[in-house]
Amino acid sequence: MPKSSCAIIPSMRVAELGEIPLIKRIVSLLPEIGQGQDLLLGPGDDTAAWRSPYPITLSTTDALIQGVHFLSSTISWRDLGWKALAVNLSDIAAMGGTPTYALVSLDLPPDTEVESVVDFYRGFLDLAARFEVTIAGGNVSRADRVSVHITLMGGLPSESMLRRSAAKPGDAIAVTGHLGASAAGLRLIKAKKEGPAAEALLQAHRRPWPRVQEGKSLLQLGIKAAMDISDGLLSDLGQLCLASKLTARIWADRIPIHPNVREVFTRQALRLALAGGEDYELLFSCPPGLVEQARKSLPVPLTVIGELEDGEAGKVVILDRWGQELPAVERGWDHFRR
Amino acid sequence: MPKSSCAIIPSMRVAELGEIPLIKRIVSLLPEIGQGQDLLLGPGDDTAAWRSPYPITLSTTDALIQGVHFLSSTISWRDLGWKALAVNLSDIAAMGGTPTYALVSLDLPPDTEVESVVDFYRGFLDLAARFEVTIAGGNVSRADRVSVHITLMGGLPSESMLRRSAAKPGDAIAVTGHLGASAAGLRLIKAKKEGPAAEALLQAHRRPWPRVQEGKSLLQLGIKAAMDISDGLLSDLGQLCLASKLTARIWADRIPIHPNVREVFTRQALRLALAGGEDYELLFSCPPGLVEQARKSLPVPLTVIGELEDGEAGKVVILDRWGQELPAVERGWDHFRR
Repeated sequence: MPKSSCAIIPSMRVAELGEIPLIKRIVSLLPEIGQGQDLLLGPGDDTAAWRSPYPITLSTTDALIQGVHFLSSTISWRDLGWKALAVNLSDIAAMGGTPTYALVSLDLPPDTEVESVVDFYRGFLDLAARFEVTIAGGNVSRADRVSVHITLMGGLPSESMLRRSAAKPGDAIAVTGHLGASAAGLRLIKAKKEGPAAEALLQAHRRPWPRVQEGKSLLQLGIKAAMDISDGLLSDLGQLCLASKLTARIWADRIPIHPNVREVFTRQALRLALAGGEDYELLFSCPPGLVEQARKSLPVPLTVIGELEDGEAGKVVILDRWGQELPAVERGWDHFRR
Repeated sequence: MPKSSCAIIPSMRVAELGEIPLIKRIVSLLPEIGQGQDLLLGPGDDTAAWRSPYPITLSTTDALIQGVHFLSSTISWRDLGWKALAVNLSDIAAMGGTPTYALVSLDLPPDTEVESVVDFYRGFLDLAARFEVTIAGGNVSRADRVSVHITLMGGLPSESMLRRSAAKPGDAIAVTGHLGASAAGLRLIKAKKEGPAAEALLQAHRRPWPRVQEGKSLLQLGIKAAMDISDGLLSDLGQLCLASKLTARIWADRIPIHPNVREVFTRQALRLALAGGEDYELLFSCPPGLVEQARKSLPVPLTVIGELEDGEAGKVVILDRWGQELPAVERGWDHFRR
């Protein structure tokens, strides 16, 4: 992989540079691969190749599409790079796995500035370095709109992993961190609102922090059932209940709404936390006796929000503080229905 | 993974069905995973998980984008599914590897018919079954245009693999099969031409056959340098020469032009074979003494088209039958320049 920098005019477009020089420019950004590493072949051959670092391989793919998952007006190229990796890291975290290698597929309009692509990779590599993820390969292609498709690999030392289908009746339902911040951040961006309370919300939307360490800790504690919150708590909890063939009962007043969401969006705060989506926190269930131990081993707050019971598979009942059932609220994200 | 078939009206659109029922319908098409297989978790959790089947993992990703790589008027959904896997299989073949698991990311306009998606998967699974590839996971998303992003994993029993960078001066340059058929097929489709000579060309364009077995045989024979021909012979040979820091000399009259291309496109036949692209044959180099052995072990024709020598890295010289250098012809495919 040649590391020499290319002479590129700042405002040059990818169509002016051409595909192969663009790939060369991208490869020049990647950290030098040392001798004796597991990666045998990085970008530049027909496939990437590495020594399989774990007996169990994890693999996930997620897409960010302009006009569907993001607008160029709401996120910078650098944050897009960060976020594209973060949403995939969150899936590896949800299994209790360790992330390893990423493939980056970037579809770009021909008039995209080369420096935008460079910024995208800078954001991606910034987060990749923090989780020791290596870009092993990828693809660039022409398209009408920007879209990013990441495949992220991970590993596990044994067949024990966090699964959606492993929750049991009587389990406590818990979440890491706070909810609603990303959806609130997006609203603030769209409304062009700023202020001291806004900053954390904008950051949550643009640079989510995946709970990789937390997922590994939960698995080490013997916890079996988890998933990440990407489509919104209610929607995702419904999926966990469906996979485990159980019903959830959660208490509205125990939802860990992000304090800044409460401050800025008083009346809509609960709804943003229940159905806003893109939180990238972990949702898990475990016997109530394990909760205290989990609380002590995680570096982030952990909140019990309800419990699981036998009943209609996939049903989520929301109770107010007097034990009354709340009416169904909007349930989350459906890619084809919004 | 529930296998019950859903009640779907034939002309139903994906927006009417919704994301989760669509995924359920897709999963219902997948073959049942048997006990004791390496796949531990297929579609339905945050990631796929499998027992790493080889000490060396290979991984590649390729995209097919409507309006760039295909038009809905030139390929059916079923053939698109086949081809999306075939182009990735060809990359695993180019390393001498064995394909294992695929992730399928499908971006769809909301008015896409559900049965079109089903046809796509039928075509994909038709080819997957022939190479024992398992769909381990994927993603569906809304988009303006159809695009397909496949990540394909493969494996190798040792660190020995076919590489672009391993060619040596004095090596013979050889290709499997015949060239130009896919590009010729696309021209016929666009011109709406049919006939007895056309059929094989249309088939080559719509249902390329990846040279997986051939790649494994070359590796077993001790051959070190190969790649697949996807962008066109001249462009790809240039890449092999660049990676190996060599110059190629090839003879125009030895190019194995597909006989039907010769028949239908007499005067343009050589150009289609040199620069048409999408052949998905293997291009390799080896000491001349290994050629006969390779010819005997491969089930397809093998043609020596030239030789490698020290010289300008990445240069390809084309000679006519009298040893005169031919002028440069169009060199192949650049994603951002066509």
